[in-house]
Amino acid sequence: MKTKNLIILLAMLISQTALAGSVKSPNGNIELKFTVDDKGRPTYEMTYKGRPVVNPSHLGLELAKDKHASRGMNETDLMEGFAIKDEQTSEQDETWQPVWGETRTIRNHYRELAVTLEQTTKIAEYKGDGTNLGTALVPHVRNIIIRFRVYDDGIGLRYEFPQQKDLNYFLIKEEHTEFAMAGDHTAWWLPGDYDTQEQETQESRLSEIRGRFNQAVNWGNSSVAVFSPTGVQTSLQMKSQDGLYINIHEAACADYATMHLELVDAQTKALTTKLDGTSNAYTPAPTPSPYPLPAPFTFVSHLTPDATGLKGAMQTPCHTPWRTVMVSDDARDMLASNLILNLNEPCALDDVSWIHPTKYCGVWWEMIVGKSNWHYTDDFPSIQLDNIDWQKVKPHGRHAANNEKVKRYIDFAAKNGLQQVLVEGWNVGWEDWANMWKRDVFDFVTPYPDFDIKMLNDYAHQKGVKLMMHHETSSSTQNYERHMEQAFQLMNKYGYDAVKTGYVGDIIPRGDHHYSQSMNNHYLHVVKEAAKHHIMVNAHEATRPTGLCRTYPNMVGNESARGTEYEAFGGSRPDHTCILPFTRLQGGPMDYTPGIFETQLKSWSNNTSWARITIAGSLALYLTMYSPLQMAADLPENYEKYDDAFQFIRDVACDWDDSRYLEAEPGDYITVARKAKGTDNWFVGGKCDEQGHKVNLRLDFLDKGRKYACTIYADAKDAHYKTNPKAYTISRRIVKQSDVLKLTEAPGGGFAVSLIAVK
Amino acid sequence: MKTKNLIILLAMLISQTALAGSVKSPNGNIELKFTVDDKGRPTYEMTYKGRPVVNPSHLGLELAKDKHASRGMNETDLMEGFAIKDEQTSEQDETWQPVWGETRTIRNHYRELAVTLEQTTKIAEYKGDGTNLGTALVPHVRNIIIRFRVYDDGIGLRYEFPQQKDLNYFLIKEEHTEFAMAGDHTAWWLPGDYDTQEQETQESRLSEIRGRFNQAVNWGNSSVAVFSPTGVQTSLQMKSQDGLYINIHEAACADYATMHLELVDAQTKALTTKLDGTSNAYTPAPTPSPYPLPAPFTFVSHLTPDATGLKGAMQTPCHTPWRTVMVSDDARDMLASNLILNLNEPCALDDVSWIHPTKYCGVWWEMIVGKSNWHYTDDFPSIQLDNIDWQKVKPHGRHAANNEKVKRYIDFAAKNGLQQVLVEGWNVGWEDWANMWKRDVFDFVTPYPDFDIKMLNDYAHQKGVKLMMHHETSSSTQNYERHMEQAFQLMNKYGYDAVKTGYVGDIIPRGDHHYSQSMNNHYLHVVKEAAKHHIMVNAHEATRPTGLCRTYPNMVGNESARGTEYEAFGGSRPDHTCILPFTRLQGGPMDYTPGIFETQLKSWSNNTSWARITIAGSLALYLTMYSPLQMAADLPENYEKYDDAFQFIRDVACDWDDSRYLEAEPGDYITVARKAKGTDNWFVGGKCDEQGHKVNLRLDFLDKGRKYACTIYADAKDAHYKTNPKAYTISRRIVKQSDVLKLTEAPGGGFAVSLIAVK
Repeated sequence: MKTKNLIILLAMLISQTALAGSVKSPNGNIELKFTVDDKGRPTYEMTYKGRPVVNPSHLGLELAKDKHASRGMNETDLMEGFAIKDEQTSEQDETWQPVWGETRTIRNHYRELAVTLEQTTKIAEYKGDGTNLGTALVPHVRNIIIRFRVYDDGIGLRYEFPQQKDLNYFLIKEEHTEFAMAGDHTAWWLPGDYDTQEQETQESRLSEIRGRFNQAVNWGNSSVAVFSPTGVQTSLQMKSQDGLYINIHEAACADYATMHLELVDAQTKALTTKLDGTSNAYTPAPTPSPYPLPAPFTFVSHLTPDATGLKGAMQTPCHTPWRTVMVSDDARDMLASNLILNLNEPCALDDVSWIHPTKYCGVWWEMIVGKSNWHYTDDFPSIQLDNIDWQKVKPHGRHAANNEKVKRYIDFAAKNGLQQVLVEGWNVGWEDWANMWKRDVFDFVTPYPDFDIKMLNDYAHQKGVKLMMHHETSSSTQNYERHMEQAFQLMNKYGYDAVKTGYVGDIIPRGDHHYSQSMNNHYLHVVKEAAKHHIMVNAHEATRPTGLCRTYPNMVGNESARGTEYEAFGGSRPDHTCILPFTRLQGGPMDYTPGIFETQLKSWSNNTSWARITIAGSLALYLTMYSPLQMAADLPENYEKYDDAFQFIRDVACDWDDSRYLEAEPGDYITVARKAKGTDNWFVGGKCDEQGHKVNLRLDFLDKGRKYACTIYADAKDAHYKTNPKAYTISRRIVKQSDVLKLTEAPGGGFAVSLIAVK
Repeated sequence: MKTKNLIILLAMLISQTALAGSVKSPNGNIELKFTVDDKGRPTYEMTYKGRPVVNPSHLGLELAKDKHASRGMNETDLMEGFAIKDEQTSEQDETWQPVWGETRTIRNHYRELAVTLEQTTKIAEYKGDGTNLGTALVPHVRNIIIRFRVYDDGIGLRYEFPQQKDLNYFLIKEEHTEFAMAGDHTAWWLPGDYDTQEQETQESRLSEIRGRFNQAVNWGNSSVAVFSPTGVQTSLQMKSQDGLYINIHEAACADYATMHLELVDAQTKALTTKLDGTSNAYTPAPTPSPYPLPAPFTFVSHLTPDATGLKGAMQTPCHTPWRTVMVSDDARDMLASNLILNLNEPCALDDVSWIHPTKYCGVWWEMIVGKSNWHYTDDFPSIQLDNIDWQKVKPHGRHAANNEKVKRYIDFAAKNGLQQVLVEGWNVGWEDWANMWKRDVFDFVTPYPDFDIKMLNDYAHQKGVKLMMHHETSSSTQNYERHMEQAFQLMNKYGYDAVKTGYVGDIIPRGDHHYSQSMNNHYLHVVKEAAKHHIMVNAHEATRPTGLCRTYPNMVGNESARGTEYEAFGGSRPDHTCILPFTRLQGGPMDYTPGIFETQLKSWSNNTSWARITIAGSLALYLTMYSPLQMAADLPENYEKYDDAFQFIRDVACDWDDSRYLEAEPGDYITVARKAKGTDNWFVGGKCDEQGHKVNLRLDFLDKGRKYACTIYADAKDAHYKTNPKAYTISRRIVKQSDVLKLTEAPGGGFAVSLIAVK
């Protein structure tokens, strides 16, 4: 990746006697103030155009008392008793080019405040053998740095722990980063959970979270591990009563536990809560936090624990992820922001030539819907991979990943310009793969007898198509790490260059959680190992992204939210896709797998669920749900029935030189225009909730004086996601920059427009 | 491996109405009776020559109630309500050849009783989505098999779980295998502990265990994780007041948690106890076991838990390890028994030509003693492997694994017929390797700058010597599994064929224990992966062996007990090595690393500890502590001062065609004669405790009519392990079968004899 840097560094040494610092964003709209309070607690506040965004909020970490405290593991919390030792401010303005993305270049422009804090305590002294000497208390001086980066659209802050004599290793009991909201905002929230983020988003006032929490949890999901009745996930999108859009998330979460937020409300007795491992219920912790409760409407960070309940094992020099607060009085800025990406490290890969945005179809939806199966046989009550001769096993006849069907999908992809075909259920082990605490669940290299891996890859390659690999780990990470190298070698051998991984079910090693430090390390380990093999990774059920795709652009996608599959599990609300870009997509692209045309699944299967969307709305998702990886998720035969509408999926790009968010309101509507990479062509998509939406689409983003062949895929007048989802119109005309298109989105509908520059 | 089988199978179908079965050992000395009691609990008892060894004892497993109970995870305990459905008896008599061992062939002769038990319960019915229907209870029929093998020197029993509709997956809360002792035996015991077995053995009556428990624990050991004040480890050696030697252990513990024993005594309130993870103290469990307490002097199995407290995740078909009870009225039979090996599966490796017993020396003892270091620099408070340019680091000058010193050891090995040289501390990361919860602690491939891996291996090979690899994992198993393949490839590249692994410190993933199911799986995974690279493994701090070396003979050694290193950490009692062969060595050889000649460490270092042994006693250990891997642990310069005594180490074999235990008493003395593999030469060793010992060594094991050049290495008359450990005599004579050697072992001493057949 080539990076164009325009770096301005203005390092200024503030007087060491200063007790507070402040920094404004480049355009002055955002101001960040920092101080330490009378107990020496680090405290920050944030305003936007003079209006409060984050009221004074404490920062700090509570450390665990480890049995090895005597051997360098510190026991003293990093919460209070701090004095400001140094403050540095600087400014950075650079432009860089992502390997793939919504725009060709990204500007990274911020002002920085880095505060060095010193804490002096006295601790017990130990002998070399770990025995507490029992008498002397020795001075213990520790420095941490809190670094703030202030952008025009938000801030990032993180804790940094320099290498030092008195702070080498420490265990985190809890991070206590506060975000004191200025009022009872409206929030789009998911129940805070250590293992799943596939719930429907709730829209409520902050004060209503506790009351709505139980009904917000889909308790039937086997992975539910909620921890508090006011715990929510990030990215958390809010809107204040006076119209400020505020978003809390994190950036660059690597080898650190995923952060949740716990809201302090009138009923909060103790901030620290714990999961009762024996059931899906949350129980308050027996010992309340020793630190005073912050003000109401304050969120406090709550990290995902490991199997022992601890939140992190750290070694200096190190730092936390960035904690981010985005803000604007224009909702479109939430979507256009690059703050999360900018807070991540530059690309770590030398060669990125093998990374490419991809449109794909796959042998998948028919299994999700239940018409065919991932598994091959019903012969056995359970499977032990070493003990089965698959050639002698009796197939049940519903196995989808068979040669004939895969060739059909390859033919479809080749005919329609889709670059890859995902095939799930190709490898042995699906007979009893989930939630059985089965470590050795897959080997990732042995195909079922009816899947000829060599023939099918050869067949695909002859047609200019690649197969896409699938590694469902069943969350047995130990097993996956043991087999991963061989699995990647198999991919290299047969010409796969992308893998969809999956983490369904409970984590093995037992007791660990999907979003813990060790699991976050695992996901990134997979991405790094895959890069060595020139393999792109799209992890499902993994941790929610935090912009690490900037550093490792072979991480081309993630699920990490409620995807299209839920349309076969009872459906998602029509406003779901008008919320996700504000929340889930802040950290990186989602493999949402859009494109369901036959929304009434019972029309071709026994599944009575149905997708809450019109066909025109489905087309819009290829624009509004940005991803370099876009699936055409429905079955070839379903697309063939609506081939004129499918033309848009054939045409639409999935990598962009420019993107313009034309209008947006969380949960209501999003309209975006994007310019296809390396071309003069634009594509526009609009998606709305169950209310419908009218758009005056001004084409002023087009080149002046140029003509464009415009094709409009719109909901028909009587279209409706419930009653008439397949009513669409296609119209064509020649347009120019000054034109305005008047478009009507049906309830649960949308539109898609292609604008091909006339040469 | 060639196996000579002489198999006799006598399958007899017992009437299905039988309520009890019994089987006697081939010579009739041992009788095993089985029944189910009035509550349907499986019950067995065992006698030896009509005397009780195990009084009626229950068998069963308590299962965990998992959140996935509704999805096939069973909740009903496998404890009671059983009926006998079938009984099969058979006899087996075969002879097999170990790849290495104490004898050239091993006879496996037993009678077997296999009882199929059926348990019918009614359980709640669930819908497909996991919801309890709430009303109907459905019949739930499960079969298990309890298999007994009765040898002339003991029994093995195990639980087998056939694959069946109502028993596919289950989680073990606890195994409740009882061993009801017939009296208040003397026991040689170690505190039951999930993470260490490096304590001094206690000798006491069973009734004294509780009172002596706290003082038996070395609380300064960072790994201590005891669980009950009457918990002890296996192999547990006992002696009844009427002279029966009884030993409880297990065989073939693979992918199952290591078993401890918990003694029921007058103060036992609840059998189930738990570890308080936050300290080294044990606390009783809040909920007592629902099952009635067995009789006093009963041991009940207590498995090592995982991070969540569960003991095992099982998938049928599967079985537990064998639970073994050895018995004899002659202590020598305890040492000569092959019961544990016989209960293991035959060799699983096709090619074993690369596996060879080995004598070695190593760059090790001087670091243990503290004269030099594993680590290379003192420059950093901690190390992050990726961030250090080792070529630029300032060495502290005490790094032992340097080119010059390693060459010195290679020269010494070559001169003295030692095949390999272990080098510890060769690879980067030792600066902060232990107990810091540091996952990425070693990479196992990067040498320190002063260790030229290519040059040193070439140098060694030119002299007919190999280097022995060292992989200290720091118990970060996740890190080791990630690097293992590359580490083994490095070994292949440079010509290493053996690795000493280490598991010092706390297990990562956090919360797991050294002897849990997952860790036991890890150790065996390493052995299997090593075998693919033709690498022999000698794991330290790993789980205690259970005879798996029969199946995987590249597992040539283990530590798994208090080794010679403790002579530098305060010392071990002189009787220690007269106990280990009865306990630790039952499951497989120990890399005890004998051979300390300069027992007063302060004579060549600043270490004030001293070895509680004479030089002649040290020589004896090469016979009494059987291992195919024998180290000459002291420094070359220390051996060179006593080169006449070192001659025995040069001469002694480490693989045998025959072994004769001539006399033995636990904790007092052991005398053994062994015939070197493929030769007519014999070696005899005698080792005693602090009391000294007189031996009339009858040479009747020699060939009749043959003459032998006999060299006797004996304690001098005034030798004493405390005051005069280096006083030895060497005498030579020609002997024949009818001769008797009168030998006196000093307190803490011993003797060694070589008998070379005169041609």
